[in-house]
Amino acid sequence: MILRDPPHHLKLFFIMQGSIVPRVAPLICLVTAIALAVVLVDRFVQPLPHISLAATGVFGIALSLFLGFRNNAAYERWWEARKLWGGLVADMRSLGRESDLFLTDDILRRQFLRCAVLFTHLHRFALRGPDDHKALDQWAGEDPELVSLATPCAALNAANGILCDAAKAGTIDGFGRKALSERLASISLAQAGCERIRVTPLPFVYSLLVLRTSWLYCLAVPFALIESTGILAPVFAAVIAYVFFGLAAVTEELEHPFADRAHGLPLAAMTRTIEIALAERIGAPVPEPLKPQNGILV
Amino acid sequence: MILRDPPHHLKLFFIMQGSIVPRVAPLICLVTAIALAVVLVDRFVQPLPHISLAATGVFGIALSLFLGFRNNAAYERWWEARKLWGGLVADMRSLGRESDLFLTDDILRRQFLRCAVLFTHLHRFALRGPDDHKALDQWAGEDPELVSLATPCAALNAANGILCDAAKAGTIDGFGRKALSERLASISLAQAGCERIRVTPLPFVYSLLVLRTSWLYCLAVPFALIESTGILAPVFAAVIAYVFFGLAAVTEELEHPFADRAHGLPLAAMTRTIEIALAERIGAPVPEPLKPQNGILV
Amino acid sequence: MILRDPPHHLKLFFIMQGSIVPRVAPLICLVTAIALAVVLVDRFVQPLPHISLAATGVFGIALSLFLGFRNNAAYERWWEARKLWGGLVADMRSLGRESDLFLTDDILRRQFLRCAVLFTHLHRFALRGPDDHKALDQWAGEDPELVSLATPCAALNAANGILCDAAKAGTIDGFGRKALSERLASISLAQAGCERIRVTPLPFVYSLLVLRTSWLYCLAVPFALIESTGILAPVFAAVIAYVFFGLAAVTEELEHPFADRAHGLPLAAMTRTIEIALAERIGAPVPEPLKPQNGILV
Amino acid sequence: MILRDPPHHLKLFFIMQGSIVPRVAPLICLVTAIALAVVLVDRFVQPLPHISLAATGVFGIALSLFLGFRNNAAYERWWEARKLWGGLVADMRSLGRESDLFLTDDILRRQFLRCAVLFTHLHRFALRGPDDHKALDQWAGEDPELVSLATPCAALNAANGILCDAAKAGTIDGFGRKALSERLASISLAQAGCERIRVTPLPFVYSLLVLRTSWLYCLAVPFALIESTGILAPVFAAVIAYVFFGLAAVTEELEHPFADRAHGLPLAAMTRTIEIALAERIGAPVPEPLKPQNGILV
Amino acid sequence: MILRDPPHHLKLFFIMQGSIVPRVAPLICLVTAIALAVVLVDRFVQPLPHISLAATGVFGIALSLFLGFRNNAAYERWWEARKLWGGLVADMRSLGRESDLFLTDDILRRQFLRCAVLFTHLHRFALRGPDDHKALDQWAGEDPELVSLATPCAALNAANGILCDAAKAGTIDGFGRKALSERLASISLAQAGCERIRVTPLPFVYSLLVLRTSWLYCLAVPFALIESTGILAPVFAAVIAYVFFGLAAVTEELEHPFADRAHGLPLAAMTRTIEIALAERIGAPVPEPLKPQNGILV
Repeated sequence: MILRDPPHHLKLFFIMQGSIVPRVAPLICLVTAIALAVVLVDRFVQPLPHISLAATGVFGIALSLFLGFRNNAAYERWWEARKLWGGLVADMRSLGRESDLFLTDDILRRQFLRCAVLFTHLHRFALRGPDDHKALDQWAGEDPELVSLATPCAALNAANGILCDAAKAGTIDGFGRKALSERLASISLAQAGCERIRVTPLPFVYSLLVLRTSWLYCLAVPFALIESTGILAPVFAAVIAYVFFGLAAVTEELEHPFADRAHGLPLAAMTRTIEIALAERIGAPVPEPLKPQNGILV
Repeated sequence: MILRDPPHHLKLFFIMQGSIVPRVAPLICLVTAIALAVVLVDRFVQPLPHISLAATGVFGIALSLFLGFRNNAAYERWWEARKLWGGLVADMRSLGRESDLFLTDDILRRQFLRCAVLFTHLHRFALRGPDDHKALDQWAGEDPELVSLATPCAALNAANGILCDAAKAGTIDGFGRKALSERLASISLAQAGCERIRVTPLPFVYSLLVLRTSWLYCLAVPFALIESTGILAPVFAAVIAYVFFGLAAVTEELEHPFADRAHGLPLAAMTRTIEIALAERIGAPVPEPLKPQNGILV
Repeated sequence: MILRDPPHHLKLFFIMQGSIVPRVAPLICLVTAIALAVVLVDRFVQPLPHISLAATGVFGIALSLFLGFRNNAAYERWWEARKLWGGLVADMRSLGRESDLFLTDDILRRQFLRCAVLFTHLHRFALRGPDDHKALDQWAGEDPELVSLATPCAALNAANGILCDAAKAGTIDGFGRKALSERLASISLAQAGCERIRVTPLPFVYSLLVLRTSWLYCLAVPFALIESTGILAPVFAAVIAYVFFGLAAVTEELEHPFADRAHGLPLAAMTRTIEIALAERIGAPVPEPLKPQNGILV
Repeated sequence: MILRDPPHHLKLFFIMQGSIVPRVAPLICLVTAIALAVVLVDRFVQPLPHISLAATGVFGIALSLFLGFRNNAAYERWWEARKLWGGLVADMRSLGRESDLFLTDDILRRQFLRCAVLFTHLHRFALRGPDDHKALDQWAGEDPELVSLATPCAALNAANGILCDAAKAGTIDGFGRKALSERLASISLAQAGCERIRVTPLPFVYSLLVLRTSWLYCLAVPFALIESTGILAPVFAAVIAYVFFGLAAVTEELEHPFADRAHGLPLAAMTRTIEIALAERIGAPVPEPLKPQNGILV
Repeated sequence: MILRDPPHHLKLFFIMQGSIVPRVAPLICLVTAIALAVVLVDRFVQPLPHISLAATGVFGIALSLFLGFRNNAAYERWWEARKLWGGLVADMRSLGRESDLFLTDDILRRQFLRCAVLFTHLHRFALRGPDDHKALDQWAGEDPELVSLATPCAALNAANGILCDAAKAGTIDGFGRKALSERLASISLAQAGCERIRVTPLPFVYSLLVLRTSWLYCLAVPFALIESTGILAPVFAAVIAYVFFGLAAVTEELEHPFADRAHGLPLAAMTRTIEIALAERIGAPVPEPLKPQNGILV
C-alpha cells in the first residue's frame, strides 16, 4: 500500500509511483498513433467520413456506466478486505484478553495463542503466497504439533483442540468454552470472507464488456475529433485513452486486494500488529511495527 | 464461474467464453439490418425523416438509468449469494470445532456432522437441482434415518434431533446446546437467504421497461445516425445494440447466481470445501478440492 | 409477485401482465395529444416559439436524478421487506428446533409453536389486511387463550407467557429461557422492521417534486421536438412520457411491498412456508406449498 | 410526517402541504426577475454576450453530482433515524417480555418498565425538545427516584439500578441479568445512534458548495437561454430554480429527521406505540395510538 | 466540526469559515489567468485552434465519475468514523451499567472504569496525536499501574486484568466475565475500525487520476470556451476550477476524519461525553460538556 501525501501540483505530472501510466502507456501510444494516422490521412490522402461527436456520446455514457460500476465494485472489495483484516486484528486482541480471563492454565494459554499467531501467518500465506517461513518456525517453537501446521484451518483446529484439552482437564468452564469458541468462529468468518474475495473475481464478462467498449470508443472517437478539435485530435485521443484505460487498470488492481502489488493491502504489517498484540502473553519478545519502505507498506 | 486472466488486447475481440456476444448476436444483426435498411431507403428510395441525435439523447439517459439500476441490483444479488455461501463455509468449519468442544459423544458427533454435510448437498440441490445423488449415499452411509433425508430443512432437523438425544443422554451441557443451536440457526439464516434469492427474481416490470426502452431506442437511433455518422450508421447501431442488449443479458445472467451457467456460483466447489472441513472429524477420507475445467469452476 | 420468464422479443410489446402501460396509458395519451396539437398549430395555424433541445436537457438530467433516487429507494424498501420475511422464515424454523431442544414439555411446546404460527398470520394481517380468518381458527384450535389473540404482539406475548409457565413448572432451564427469548426478540425485530416499512412512506415531497418536474418536462419538450424530430414529435413525446411516468409508477408500486398488487411480496406463500416448517412439531397435517396462479404468487 | 396519497394529476400543481414551493418561492421569483431583466436588456437596451448552452452544461453535471450526493446522504440519515426508532420499538417490546420471564418480582418489574417508558419520553425530549411533561409525571407516579429523572441516560441507569437491587435480593438469576443488560445495551446503542444524527450535521462545506454553485448556475443560465429559448427564457429559469433550489431545500429538511417539521419523524406516535406495548405490564390503562391530524403525524 | 446554520443567501458568498475557497484560491487564479491569456492571444496576437465544447464533454463526464466516486468514498469514511465513535459512547455507557451489575467489588469497579476513561483518551491520542496529558494524570490518579499506561491496547489490557483479579477473588461470576469481556471486545472492534480508517488512506492512484484529469480539463477548456462564451471565458474557467478543485479539496479533508481540521470529528467533545457517563460511578466530579467555540467543536 502506498503511503504518501498527495503531490504538489508541480510534481503532479512526473510521479510514477502508484501511477497507472506505465501500465497503460502502450495503449495510450497506440490510440494516439491511430488518431494521428486518421488526421493525416484525412488531410493529405483522402477525406475520411467525419462523424458527429454527439454520436460517440452514447458510448461515453455507456462507458461511464460500466467503468463506474466496476470501479465501485472493485473498491468495495478492496475496502471489505481491509475491514475483514481490521476485524481480525480486533478479534486477536480480544482473543488474548479472553484467554487471560477464561483459560487459567498458563501453558495451554500460551500454546493456544501461538496457534492464533500461526493462523495469522498461514492465513496470509493462503492469500498472498508463502513469504516468510522463518516466522512460522519462530512461533511454532519446537512443539511438533505446531510445526506441522500447514493451513489456516489446521491452526484454528489446533487452537480448538487445546480448548478441548483444557475442558477435559477442567481448567476451563462453560463460559470460557462458549466465549473462546465464539471468538474462534468470528476469526473463522473473517478468514472465509478473505478467501471469498480471493477466489471469486468480478464476473469475467464485465472485463470483456469494458475492454471491448473502450476499444470501440477509442477507434471511433478520432473520426469525430477531426471535426471538432482539428489538429489537436491526437492529443484528445491520448487523454481519452489515459482516462478510460487508466481507470480500467486501477480497477483491475484494486479488484485483487491481497495481491503483492503497489495497491495491495499491507498484510505483513497487519500480521505484525497481531504479533505485537499477543507476543507478551506468549512470553516472546515484542517485535517492532513494520514501517513503510520508500512510501510502500507491504 | 469463469476463472481466467483478463485477455491480452489482441485476443480480446475473439474470446467467446464468458462473452455475451453469442446470446445477443441475433439482436445485434437485426438492429444492424434495420439501420442498413434505413440508410439505403434514405439514400436510394426516398428521404426519410431525419431526427436530431440530441432527441435520442434522452433515451440514452433513461436507458443508462434503467440498465445501471438493474445491473447494480443483479450484481448485488450475485455477490450476496456468494457471501451467504462464504458464511456457510465458515459456519460449517465452526460447527465442526464446536462439536469437538461441546459434543463429547463420538458416535453422536459423527452423525451430527454427517447431517451437516448432507444439509450442504441438499441445500445445493434445492438451489440448482439435484446433480449428484452418489454424494448423498456416500455421506448418509447405512443409517436409515440419514438415507431418508430429502430436504435441507430435514437435515437440519435431524442434526437438531441428535442434540436432543445427547441432551437426554446427558452428554451435552447447557452451554453446548446453546452454542450448537446458535450455529444451526446461523446456518438456517444463510439457507433462507439463498432461498430468498432463488425464489424472488428482480421485479418483472423492470425487464419490460428495459427491453421495451432498448428496442424503442434501437429503432429510433438509425434515423438520427444517418445525419451524424452517414454511411457508418449500421456500424454504430450494431455497437449500440451490443452495448445495451449485452448489458441486459449480463444482468439477466447475474440475477440468477445459482443457475448452472457460465457465471453461476461454483456451488459444487464450495460444497467440496465444506466436505474437506468436516471429513476428518467424521472419519471419512478427505476429498480433493475441485479444480476449474477449461477455466470453469462449477 | 409475478413469476414468469422474461418475454421473447416478439411478444415483448404485447404483454400487459406486470406492465405499467395500463396505469400510465391516459398520461401517455394526454402528452401525445399535446405534442400533436403543438405540431399542428405550429405548422398550420401560427408558428410557435421553438426552443433548443439542449435547453430541455437540464430537465432530463434533473429528472434522471430524482427518478433514479426514488427508484433506488423504493426498490431497497421492497428488497428489505423481502429480507425481513426471509429472516422470519429462518427464525421460525430455528424456533421450532430450539423448542425441541429446550422446551421439554410436549404440551407447552405445541402451544408455544401454535402461538408462533398465529403470530405469522396476524403479522400478515397487520401488513396487508386480514384475508383468511379460517387459518386463525384452524391453528388456534379450541384453546380460548389462543382464539382471543388479535394482534401479532399479543401472539408473541402469549408465546412468552408459555415460557414463563414452563419456567415456573421447571421444565425449561436458564439456557432455554435465554435461547428462546432471544429468538422471540429476533422475530420481534423483523416484525418492527416490516411495520416501519408499512407505516413510513417515502417522503411525500419527492412525489411532488418528481411529478411536477415530469409534467413541466412533458409540456416543454414538444416545443423542442418540433425542431429536431419534425413530424415524429408526438411519437417521441409518447415514448418520453412512457419512460418517465412509467418509472414513476413502478416506483410507487415497489414503495409498498406489502400491498396486494402484482408486484407485492407473496406474504401468503411465505406464511405457508412457515406453516410447513412447524406443522409436524405441532401435530397438524403438513400443508402443501402455494403455487403461482397465472404467474402470480400471492 | 405527512401521510397522504399521491395527488391526482389535476390537483398536483395546487398542493401546498409538504411542498417546498413556499420555502423557495422568493428564490424562484428572484431568478425569474433576473432572467427577465437579461432578456429585456438584451432585446431593447443593448445586446448582451450570448453564451452557448453547452457551456453551462458542465455546471449542470456538477450540480447534479453535488445535489445527488447530498440528497442521498440526507435521505439515508432520515431513514437510519427511522430504523433506529423502529429498533427501539422492537427492543422495548422484547424488554417487556424478557422482564416477564426473568424478573420475577412484580413490584421491581413494574418499576423497571416505568423507567423504560420514561427513557423513551426523555430520549424524545433530548432529540426534539421537551413537549409533554405531563406524560413524565404520569409514568413516574409518586416514586421520588423516578420523578427526579431528567436525562435518558439517567432513566437507563435507574432501570439498571433496579436490576442490581433484584440481583442483591436474589430475584433475578445470572441468565436474567445477562439478558436484560444486553437489552439495555441495545437500547443504549439506538439512543447513541439518534444522538449522533442529531448533533452531527452533514459537513457544512457541502451547503456552501451546493448553494454557491446553484447561484452561479442560475446567474449564468439566462445568458444561455436567450439564445436557445428566446422569450421563454424567464419560464425556463424559473423551472431550473424550482428544481435545484427545491431539491436543496428538501435535502436540508430531511437532514434533520428529529426536527418538528412537516417531514420530521413521528416521534410522539412512536413513543405512544412503546407506551401501548408496556402499559398493561405496568398496570396502567393502555392508551390509544396517535392518529394523523390533517395528514400530519407528529 | 463546524456547527452553524446554513447561511442566508446574501452572506453566502462572503463566508470563509468552512469554505474551501482559501485552499483552492491559487489554483482558481492560475486557471483564470491561463484562460485570460488564451482569450487575449486568440484575439490580439494570433488565432489559436478552437475546439468544440462537446469534445471536452467527455472529460466532464469522466471527471464527474472520478470526483463522485472519491467524494462518496471519503464521506463514507467520515461517517463510518462518526458511527464508530457513537458506538463507543454507547459501549462505554453500557460498560458502566454492566460493571454496576456484575462487578460487585467497589474498588475494582472504580479502577476498571478508570481504565475505560483512560482508554478513551489514549485512543484519541492515537488518532489525533496527544493533546491533553493533564486529563490522563487526572484519571489515572496515583495508581502506578494506571499512570504507566501509554497505548489504548494497554488500557484495555489493564481493564481485563482487573476482571482476572476479580475472578480470582471470586467477586465476579461467569455471567459477569462473559458480559464484560464481550463489552471490551466490542470496544476493541470500534478501536480497530478507527485505526483502520486512520492508517489506510484512499488508494493513492485516485488522487493522481483526479488531479491529472482536472488539470488536463482546465487546460483544454479555455480553447473550447473562446468559441462558446467569448469574453466570459475566464469567468467560466474560474467557476469550473472552483467546482472541480473545490470538490477535490473537500474530499481530501473528509478523507481524514480524525485530523485536527475544520471538518474533523469532535473527538474531544465525544471523549467528554464518555467522561460524563462514567465520572459519577468512579466518584469523580462530573465535568461539563464541551461547547462549540466560534462555531467549531473540537
